[in-house]
Amino acid sequence: MSESVEIVTIGDELLLGTTIDTNAVFLARALGEIGVPIARRATVADDPDEITDAVRQALERTGGVITTGGLGPTADDLTRPVLARLFGRELREDPAIVAALHALWASRGRGGALPPSNLQQALVPEGAEVLANAQGTAPGLKLTDAQGRWVIMLPGVPRELRHMTTTHIVPWLASRGSGTVLRSRSVRTTSIAESALAEKLGPMKREVEGLPLAYLPGHDGVDLRVTARGLAAEESTRRLDAAVARIRETVGIHAYATDGVSMASVVLDLCVARGDTIAVAESCTGGLLGARLTEVPGSSRVLLGGVIAYSNAVKEQELGVSADDLEQFGAVSEQVAVQMARGVRGMIGATIGVGITGIAGPDGGTPDKPVGTVWIAIDVRGETTARVAIYIGDRAEIRHRATQVAMDLIRRALLAS
Amino acid sequence: MSESVEIVTIGDELLLGTTIDTNAVFLARALGEIGVPIARRATVADDPDEITDAVRQALERTGGVITTGGLGPTADDLTRPVLARLFGRELREDPAIVAALHALWASRGRGGALPPSNLQQALVPEGAEVLANAQGTAPGLKLTDAQGRWVIMLPGVPRELRHMTTTHIVPWLASRGSGTVLRSRSVRTTSIAESALAEKLGPMKREVEGLPLAYLPGHDGVDLRVTARGLAAEESTRRLDAAVARIRETVGIHAYATDGVSMASVVLDLCVARGDTIAVAESCTGGLLGARLTEVPGSSRVLLGGVIAYSNAVKEQELGVSADDLEQFGAVSEQVAVQMARGVRGMIGATIGVGITGIAGPDGGTPDKPVGTVWIAIDVRGETTARVAIYIGDRAEIRHRATQVAMDLIRRALLAS
Repeated sequence: MSESVEIVTIGDELLLGTTIDTNAVFLARALGEIGVPIARRATVADDPDEITDAVRQALERTGGVITTGGLGPTADDLTRPVLARLFGRELREDPAIVAALHALWASRGRGGALPPSNLQQALVPEGAEVLANAQGTAPGLKLTDAQGRWVIMLPGVPRELRHMTTTHIVPWLASRGSGTVLRSRSVRTTSIAESALAEKLGPMKREVEGLPLAYLPGHDGVDLRVTARGLAAEESTRRLDAAVARIRETVGIHAYATDGVSMASVVLDLCVARGDTIAVAESCTGGLLGARLTEVPGSSRVLLGGVIAYSNAVKEQELGVSADDLEQFGAVSEQVAVQMARGVRGMIGATIGVGITGIAGPDGGTPDKPVGTVWIAIDVRGETTARVAIYIGDRAEIRHRATQVAMDLIRRALLAS
Repeated sequence: MSESVEIVTIGDELLLGTTIDTNAVFLARALGEIGVPIARRATVADDPDEITDAVRQALERTGGVITTGGLGPTADDLTRPVLARLFGRELREDPAIVAALHALWASRGRGGALPPSNLQQALVPEGAEVLANAQGTAPGLKLTDAQGRWVIMLPGVPRELRHMTTTHIVPWLASRGSGTVLRSRSVRTTSIAESALAEKLGPMKREVEGLPLAYLPGHDGVDLRVTARGLAAEESTRRLDAAVARIRETVGIHAYATDGVSMASVVLDLCVARGDTIAVAESCTGGLLGARLTEVPGSSRVLLGGVIAYSNAVKEQELGVSADDLEQFGAVSEQVAVQMARGVRGMIGATIGVGITGIAGPDGGTPDKPVGTVWIAIDVRGETTARVAIYIGDRAEIRHRATQVAMDLIRRALLAS
């Protein structure tokens, strides 16, 4: 088993909830890939005693700690002096970092002299290793004590942290490994409940191929994750592949992808393989389906375009939805969804049209059509399918779920045809 | 000062990085509002020893712990039995919860009998208080020991956790308060660097009205946050209001909002006040600007609609962009952005048109127009403005920043006119 590490993320904003800790997520994935388990994660305030206490405890437990945040140019950036003190080191200004800071400032064309506060970032504890930051101003630092216990300080800016993790941290940690890895794989499902999945999996509901199975419900559906620990890389891959294959087979059509693959990628790949193209007509989702599809690089081959038809006038004039049907059945109806899908397909000249119309809330619900009611229609080369559901959640959840179902309808239609 | 609490979030998926811990963010905000500081947050695996250890340490430090996760119906849900053991209590099946589980299953129309695994959720440690979960199957639990130290177990499903926090946790914690609050407020800025802000703020760069100032850079720009601790509610509000006013005055036009208010809300409010309406034409952002604007409830009064013009054919046929200009200047050019803005304004009949065209990457860059190059144009009642920038970051960051700048252009144009 590889030595594990702990993560200490530093920042008032993380405890106050003003910022989501995406760095912890990135580090977890990057370290997991090379079989370095994260034993524990702690989040503490921009407070000298709290930082000292959390890092000292983590060092006592695991002997290896990565911190994020508190390396910037402002007064609430305390990580550098506090951890220098914990390791009993003086801070010295590093002339190479000073020069690099001046050069970076000039190259960004910001004009004027480097603000003096930035020079705080050139202070280095005696004996520390400086980890270059190609993406920003604050370099990382690594301190090691006489017993070989270490702490690596990384900046809190996500882009900088990600780059330094990939270039410095992962290669160094991987070189210390014991030959075993920690890896997990997931099968992604949608339109099926967690407990229904467990029943479907039967004897495999807790363990598949000897690997523990976890259920991770989210807005996209339920992800089923198997994890292999303490195995050599090859054996780990073999067992995970076998487990994923068995889960996919058992879950059937509800499984749309594995691992981090998005529904958008799956749909785009299916379209590319079959020569299909997509046009979207969005009312309550206001462009979100288009935005999700175009998150994927290369999506321009498939998503030709679309119409955000928030107002009824746009639905009528641009998509050719019948004014009578809008009047008789309402904007949130099967008739309107189908006409939106057909209309946008014809207008853009795609093989597949999608129409979404619903009530995302928080207002606008009626007893007949409560908040969360969404009609989704697809027109695949002239063949239309429509579906209504009442999605649970807030405005953002309802909109996200509706776009997920719209993509899933395309996926199922293409697989069935 | 109110008694602080610690948060222990439980789940392999959090340490493996497959899930982002949005529950911790929600709890932090909800508790901060009522002046209950979160002293520390720890994240541990679905492992009995790790859960026990983290909760025991947190109880020793602060005497009040909220856990999230591990209460569901599957085998990796360990929180209930592990914490019952830590408190020395037996687990008993609660007939009221059993009945509620059966009723919920039936009401959701899932068909068939309740899967037996769900009954795990009816086990309650002796002497525990059951916290009803109106949004899901797993109730919360509260255990208190002889010294008055307590742990509250909440489910990991965000919607359920949020509802239980609002209905049970916040009222109970607020009733134990000492009369002081922990509150923070933010001034949101965009299109200005962190260090340039610090220089602009001069003597206020670390502290405003005696309150510490933090710099929080993100994709929307830099948020400036002041925090008041250990003050009575009224004094805290007075100091925070004064600090926010001074910061806004000093930062000027770069400050677009305060606290959690989004750029989309600011732009929509400005439009409502002036009788303006918006139409969007999006190429590289593929609907993201529309999606961000329509995140805001009531946005239908302003955003009439738009066109996702990913392909050149859609740019020409629907928006009337000149084929010659597409050929001569390329799709990513001032000419095309301006014609997109004008075209969509006319087509939809709005007072403001927006055109965005750029290279979101990772491919498609050239020496002249590297990845990240985005032209944005706005047409406000016939007056057009265009702007180009090279955004740094990955595809998602480039697209997000471009939509932020597009909205900021509208904001500045409306404020200047």
